Amino acid sequence: MKVTDWIARIQPLDERAMQAARLRQDRLTKPMGSLGRLEALSVQIAGITRQALPHLRHKVVTVMAGDHGVVRQGVSAYPQDVTPQMVLNFLSGGAAINVLARHTGARVVVVDMGVAADLPPHPDLVVKKIAYGTSDITTGPAMSRSQAERAILAGAEVVEQELGRSLDILATGDMGIGNTTPSAAIAVALTGYPAEQIVGRGTGIDETGLQRKRSIVQRAMEVNAPNPGDGLEILAKVGGFEIAGLVGAILASTANSRPVVIDGFISTAAAMLAVSLCPQVRGYLIAAHASPELGHLRMLEWLQLEPLLDLEMRLGEGTGAVLAMSIAEAACKILCEMATFDEAGVSEKTKERG
Amino acid sequence: MKVTDWIARIQPLDERAMQAARLRQDRLTKPMGSLGRLEALSVQIAGITRQALPHLRHKVVTVMAGDHGVVRQGVSAYPQDVTPQMVLNFLSGGAAINVLARHTGARVVVVDMGVAADLPPHPDLVVKKIAYGTSDITTGPAMSRSQAERAILAGAEVVEQELGRSLDILATGDMGIGNTTPSAAIAVALTGYPAEQIVGRGTGIDETGLQRKRSIVQRAMEVNAPNPGDGLEILAKVGGFEIAGLVGAILASTANSRPVVIDGFISTAAAMLAVSLCPQVRGYLIAAHASPELGHLRMLEWLQLEPLLDLEMRLGEGTGAVLAMSIAEAACKILCEMATFDEAGVSEKTKERG
Repeated sequence: MKVTDWIARIQPLDERAMQAARLRQDRLTKPMGSLGRLEALSVQIAGITRQALPHLRHKVVTVMAGDHGVVRQGVSAYPQDVTPQMVLNFLSGGAAINVLARHTGARVVVVDMGVAADLPPHPDLVVKKIAYGTSDITTGPAMSRSQAERAILAGAEVVEQELGRSLDILATGDMGIGNTTPSAAIAVALTGYPAEQIVGRGTGIDETGLQRKRSIVQRAMEVNAPNPGDGLEILAKVGGFEIAGLVGAILASTANSRPVVIDGFISTAAAMLAVSLCPQVRGYLIAAHASPELGHLRMLEWLQLEPLLDLEMRLGEGTGAVLAMSIAEAACKILCEMATFDEAGVSEKTKERG
Repeated sequence: MKVTDWIARIQPLDERAMQAARLRQDRLTKPMGSLGRLEALSVQIAGITRQALPHLRHKVVTVMAGDHGVVRQGVSAYPQDVTPQMVLNFLSGGAAINVLARHTGARVVVVDMGVAADLPPHPDLVVKKIAYGTSDITTGPAMSRSQAERAILAGAEVVEQELGRSLDILATGDMGIGNTTPSAAIAVALTGYPAEQIVGRGTGIDETGLQRKRSIVQRAMEVNAPNPGDGLEILAKVGGFEIAGLVGAILASTANSRPVVIDGFISTAAAMLAVSLCPQVRGYLIAAHASPELGHLRMLEWLQLEPLLDLEMRLGEGTGAVLAMSIAEAACKILCEMATFDEAGVSEKTKERG
């Protein structure tokens, strides 16, 4: 398959399933609209899954890991070793994403998309390594166009594999020291906002570090000058391997009629690239949460998505996405499991008075 | 027990447990503070439960039901029969709260505090009926002061009973056609805001209905003139039996060092009364969500609580509270189950650069 093959398989949402879900929501034993966003969410998921009564039994979060040449410019508060160390932490179940995935009943799939170290083999580690980290985006492209395409396809393969083990909904997660920098560059390229309005503190750099990070993103844009109309070029020039993997995972999920819950800053950059490659992807996306990372709300605005949660989380790994995925599951259960007025023998709204 | 006995048992939060939780949060494998409100929530719950590593295994939502004499003035879009009908729906598992409680692993406890009908006996129905609905608050007090006190004690007994079956955290839920009207009156009495800034559309009345509901709340305040410094008087004069039951449930939970997740408009009115009876209750409360019902954010402001969720839910029953209760549980699991930097062999933040 090529990237264009995935894109060709993506369908518009199923209007009939959405209409059926909407009608049923209005027959359930509650005032119309009183479950707010849960109702809208269930209708969207009906449209995505093409089922009037969608069930989200198998929830999967793919945590894609990669390293970034730009870290040598000092963009992160953490050393690059933390990327492989955290991958091992994911595999042994001790990271935040493991705890929250266990809590919400999601399966964690850890993928090495481009970690700058050899990781010991592990039965649960999916190895799709494209290279040992990207090149420094302040001096040239992060990767070649063909690497970008291969990385997208690798991410799509991960989802295909997981579909075989059952996957009803995907959450996107990331790990990569320094990866708020390429994500910010992607957002600058697509939104046109200046770096000062997008670049934030990531894992927690100080004021001087923030100024440097802004000028680094600015420099990456000047050096690479990605064409804002070409998502693949943006990805190759200022992106990252884990971001590319997430783009592929998003494309494969949407091509298979599965909803995708987008985590924070890095996942949102990947979602923007997926939408720039195929605008129909947008309807399949659920924005998990608002990150306090500076540009995140502007990125969600560009995607025309309203985040479900705002818990001031800024960890990545898919931590916000698994919490939101549980709310998406709850929304579908409301649609499928609640009694209707007729079934429960509950009186309906009286004629409007006054 | 008297109400004052419950109040006397309520302790300040345990500072040592909070300090221990805070220190541990900073040792977990994530950038400091990157889990935002989950971190603060885990520290609060450590203080409430007096345990540095709190576990919320047994989650309970008490859905208290009662009727309101004021419905004869035409304050609701639904007929009064819906209160007992919905109680039966709760007991047969078909209501929204049943679905969301099953989803989050919470136990639903349905309580008849003052439904204006005889309900058929059911093994899962807790009967604490004080009367067949309150009196019309536009012509006099909702109930006598002694009824208010008995209703609070009955609500506390429900929690005592559930503690015997195990209860680590309580969520408050309500059912009662017309109960946004007494809740608004309580909020007007305590906040001093005029009725126009508190009274909303409830289950969905039209504009004329809304104007009438506002003047009804205004009239209830003029007729009853409750002393804003006397929570019990406010409850008796303009409250409701299910609201009183929730006040008692909140007092008993806090007296037993259990966190309380407050649902929407009605539960928040009950929480305000509990705090007006005993200001220390405030530290035990977690505001589940922001309701679109007009005065709700002003009420949360009065309580100095920040809602966890904003999903535009306005159903009551405890539906928002059980979703938030699951997030509180997740916050505690993060604290208890995540690996520390030392345990996982992950490098810490490098010295600030720049």
